[in-house]
Amino acid sequence: MNAYSIIEKKRDAQTLSDEEVRWFVTELTQGHIKDYQASAFLMAAFINDLSPSETSALTKAMIESGRRLSFDEPNVVDKHSTGGIGDKTSFITGPIAAACGVKVPMVAGRGLGHTGGTVDKAESIPGFKTALTLENFRSLVEKNNIVLMGQTDDFAPVDKTLYALRDVTATINSIPLITASIMSKKLAEGIRGLVIDLKFGSGAFMKTVPDARRLALSMIELGRSYDLPIMAFLTNMNWPLGESVGNSLEVIECIETLKGQGPKDLEEISVELASGMIVLAGLADSRLQGKQMAQKALESGAALKKFEQLVKSQGGHPDIVSRPSLLSVARETHSIKAQEDGYIESFENDKIGRLLVDLGGGRKTKEEQIDPSVGFKFAKKPGDFVKAQETILTVFHHDSQKDLVESLEKRFFREIVEMSQSKPTLDPLILDVLGDRT
Amino acid sequence: MNAYSIIEKKRDAQTLSDEEVRWFVTELTQGHIKDYQASAFLMAAFINDLSPSETSALTKAMIESGRRLSFDEPNVVDKHSTGGIGDKTSFITGPIAAACGVKVPMVAGRGLGHTGGTVDKAESIPGFKTALTLENFRSLVEKNNIVLMGQTDDFAPVDKTLYALRDVTATINSIPLITASIMSKKLAEGIRGLVIDLKFGSGAFMKTVPDARRLALSMIELGRSYDLPIMAFLTNMNWPLGESVGNSLEVIECIETLKGQGPKDLEEISVELASGMIVLAGLADSRLQGKQMAQKALESGAALKKFEQLVKSQGGHPDIVSRPSLLSVARETHSIKAQEDGYIESFENDKIGRLLVDLGGGRKTKEEQIDPSVGFKFAKKPGDFVKAQETILTVFHHDSQKDLVESLEKRFFREIVEMSQSKPTLDPLILDVLGDRT
Repeated sequence: MNAYSIIEKKRDAQTLSDEEVRWFVTELTQGHIKDYQASAFLMAAFINDLSPSETSALTKAMIESGRRLSFDEPNVVDKHSTGGIGDKTSFITGPIAAACGVKVPMVAGRGLGHTGGTVDKAESIPGFKTALTLENFRSLVEKNNIVLMGQTDDFAPVDKTLYALRDVTATINSIPLITASIMSKKLAEGIRGLVIDLKFGSGAFMKTVPDARRLALSMIELGRSYDLPIMAFLTNMNWPLGESVGNSLEVIECIETLKGQGPKDLEEISVELASGMIVLAGLADSRLQGKQMAQKALESGAALKKFEQLVKSQGGHPDIVSRPSLLSVARETHSIKAQEDGYIESFENDKIGRLLVDLGGGRKTKEEQIDPSVGFKFAKKPGDFVKAQETILTVFHHDSQKDLVESLEKRFFREIVEMSQSKPTLDPLILDVLGDRT
Repeated sequence: MNAYSIIEKKRDAQTLSDEEVRWFVTELTQGHIKDYQASAFLMAAFINDLSPSETSALTKAMIESGRRLSFDEPNVVDKHSTGGIGDKTSFITGPIAAACGVKVPMVAGRGLGHTGGTVDKAESIPGFKTALTLENFRSLVEKNNIVLMGQTDDFAPVDKTLYALRDVTATINSIPLITASIMSKKLAEGIRGLVIDLKFGSGAFMKTVPDARRLALSMIELGRSYDLPIMAFLTNMNWPLGESVGNSLEVIECIETLKGQGPKDLEEISVELASGMIVLAGLADSRLQGKQMAQKALESGAALKKFEQLVKSQGGHPDIVSRPSLLSVARETHSIKAQEDGYIESFENDKIGRLLVDLGGGRKTKEEQIDPSVGFKFAKKPGDFVKAQETILTVFHHDSQKDLVESLEKRFFREIVEMSQSKPTLDPLILDVLGDRT
């Protein structure tokens, strides 16, 4: 077996054997295959696609590049979101599910490009540590039902190599490669069920519903080959989820939602995702029953308590729930107001993510620091009617950023918002639920 | 402009602008684009192809990565072969054309894998130097009408980078990439016409006639965009050209052919190629007339004299023509004999090239040294009838290689030769002549 013949086969759209895929990934992990051979392979895989059997073999080989946990309990269920703008459900869904008896071992990433990351949001809480050992990770989930760890080199470390290459060679958006990247890490966590929040729309990686559906089905099929039940929610990322975008603002919004005072879309989606986790954990027979349990955990304050326990157990400030103002928020605000009466027809949602990057609240490259205090709060979203001079969103920024904010406002009107005189027809918040035990 | 978006466009089978191609190659030449980005681009170009305009832009950018000569005389014509087994026409065609008044500035390469290289053959002549400065190169062609230089970093140096990447990422056999690689170097030589010996068959890079024809047409089309007339001969590489394979043996065969005592197929093809060069140089009105001139140069001994002058001018032993035994040939011989009566139906010709590599006469990697003294001499080829125990070929080897030769003999019967009881129908030596002034 050699790298050349494997690249050649994929170049010619032939199907690789399990042994060939495993050999390639093992040699890559050990540094015997050069970057330029790996990237040629990735491009061939991108253009010619990988079959389900190749995707499964790739996932298996990636898992074998690192450690793999296993839990005896059947109720260990994680949630994964494919990412978006204002996407903050982990801090609500996780605590709800944990309060209902699900064991939730969350492993999350940092934001990159236009999408935010759960680890960055967690770190906007003073003191919160996401760098845990696997032993910490396991004992916290046993003790509290919930833990949040940053991605580590323990799980599927070769994914880091592959992702870094894909990132600079235009091979990110391949359904089999995304499937293997996500699933290798999730399977290595040793979970027994997985809820996927599969975003579609202008702020998501999958811009169209058919692509989102293909990715969901690819992950579900892969899960089945590993006896891992997966439930995938296709959810709308054509505009930010909730009202807030920016790390501190988003955590504050999560606390409000856990107190029953958050935006309705965020609450709805969080409860739905938690219901899926409860079902996959075997704690409810149907999503309807799961939703009732989730709703109760929210209303009783049990989920809020779980959130508080999560924060305290990982070194976060113990008073964060009662004093959300401990989170650092930029002082200056600027309202971006409608220029005319009309309906908001649409947002170019990914560009909202890019505005946040330009404000310092996101990062273009992995090395950049993030400013958690800046962000946006949306008063109006697509489908809403606004009067001229009514606020669409408020920008939270620093004194020194006034010129920048002015230019962001111009970009907002030029590139992001589309107005209309008639009420637009919009996709629902949750378009479909696919997979196991739905 | 950036590397990512250019890779992305080619990934999606879009057509790049001249500016994009030029930018990519310039940045690569300057080391600003990483190997892994270049290889991803090459794979996308391989799978999704390059348009004629992209191929032309790529060629232009590759030329601009180095120096470019120009000759005022219209009669400066080179010959290029796409390579094969026993392919040694440069030492016959070049001198014939030069003797007829064509200026022949040959730039040649080394052998790699199953094909041989003109520079290696030249270096089997004691003292022959192929490392010349551009000034030497130009003055020798002015003075003698003929010169043979090894490939240098002066002409299209970025091709070296690209070729090295293609070689390890299974992206060699792309018609546009081959076209740009060959043509950038040939155009940089400043020639005014080009004869291409486009090999097809089991010992050629282009295994099939349609592929060979496509490559010929791609080069001819590119030539037209540069006002470079090209004549392409589609010639048969399903078996070795001539009788000898191996560097010293091949040079000896060239000298015999220049003396009128060589194999007829080698003489025929050399004369045909020379006739094309004579026509493109404007020294004959038709190939028929060119052939008559070429034949005369051969019969009169003028071509042999040119060869002698070429050798002497570049430091080669002055007596090589009268004493070909100055070339080092391995002492031991072993005859591989037919096992049964019958016609030779076919050879797996590329595997003959690989036998030579295993004997030490070719190289697997660029760094390897070549043993010019080993090789094969074929008494019979496809289409010939052989009796049992009649010699098909003789192996020239060293005393220490007896076991190896035994295993090569087994491989010859197992993998290379196919016998038949009826006379096979074979492609002609020269299948077609395409392009300008044919």
